[in-house]
Amino acid sequence: MNKGKQTRQHIIARAADVFSMRGFFGTSMRDLTDATGIEKGGIYNHFSSKEALAIESFDYATNLIAQRFVVVLAGKESPLERLVAIVEVFYSLIDDPVLTGGCPVLNTAIESDDTYPVLRERARRAMTSWHKLIGREVKAGVAQGELKPESDPYTVATIVTATLEGAIMLSKLYDDSVYIQRAVDHMADYIRSLAL
Amino acid sequence: MNKGKQTRQHIIARAADVFSMRGFFGTSMRDLTDATGIEKGGIYNHFSSKEALAIESFDYATNLIAQRFVVVLAGKESPLERLVAIVEVFYSLIDDPVLTGGCPVLNTAIESDDTYPVLRERARRAMTSWHKLIGREVKAGVAQGELKPESDPYTVATIVTATLEGAIMLSKLYDDSVYIQRAVDHMADYIRSLAL
Repeated sequence: MNKGKQTRQHIIARAADVFSMRGFFGTSMRDLTDATGIEKGGIYNHFSSKEALAIESFDYATNLIAQRFVVVLAGKESPLERLVAIVEVFYSLIDDPVLTGGCPVLNTAIESDDTYPVLRERARRAMTSWHKLIGREVKAGVAQGELKPESDPYTVATIVTATLEGAIMLSKLYDDSVYIQRAVDHMADYIRSLAL
Repeated sequence: MNKGKQTRQHIIARAADVFSMRGFFGTSMRDLTDATGIEKGGIYNHFSSKEALAIESFDYATNLIAQRFVVVLAGKESPLERLVAIVEVFYSLIDDPVLTGGCPVLNTAIESDDTYPVLRERARRAMTSWHKLIGREVKAGVAQGELKPESDPYTVATIVTATLEGAIMLSKLYDDSVYIQRAVDHMADYIRSLAL
């Protein structure tokens, strides 16, 4: 990577953390220059606007999360085992969060739903790909006779994402990981309850 | 109510809706004057700052929500029936939301967790009173032999609030009430699964 590209990546990575804590509206250019150690002109050299940087930071953050899933899913063939692994990724967020400010999809969804179509579209896409990851395993589990035939991919995807995202919100609000812990335990039980 | 008090209430009610959509940082004085039809000076006449207005709007919004619970719980004696009623309040949010921008506790939690201690404290208090409402019924249900003795008030409160808040986020993100629908169905089943 050349120097310019390195600087660009550095700005994106630090900005992702700042946006995750302060939100899009709450993040000022000053917050970004403080976090990156790069002056305003230097940032605008690489990104045309705060919005352009926010979008790249969002993609960077969701890619980091996607990589966690790739790692835990590697080598697991059984859909049931894969579903439990997907849920249990959230344990790792307690001690080793991807970003300081919690889940970027959750934060962006809440902040942008009524106000910011470009970011909302990004959050929708990221959430949909997570729903599809879960739904696919549910379908495969039913097809392979591992899960009860009435297991509905859409319902399971909704319940898992709603419960875990809601629990991240609670753990952040109270600064206490017990909420994520309880939600992951409960979701792992829920997934196992779908087994034939 | 005298004229001054009426104006004050009008500002709080309209501001609650604006904050719920745009967030604290995303709401400008201009947004507030547009929504209330009252000029900046008139707003500052009643509130010392945007923060002071945000806090009163938050309290106003959470009181509106609390009233919904009071209404559905009136006359219900059985803890199991009360828990199902608490969960099913969320169906009413689909056709008749308290605020345009979703749940004020969820929005405030996400926005303030890393940045705004006064609002975070408010969100914590509101969330804790909801946890207590649920936890109390679980304890009563166990004591009265309606619920399985191993039903844990803390776990039930966490799972119910996480799942329903997460579902509100999904329904707002996709502008589709099916997520709340699925979550309420699932939570009503979950509560019933605790019955002896």
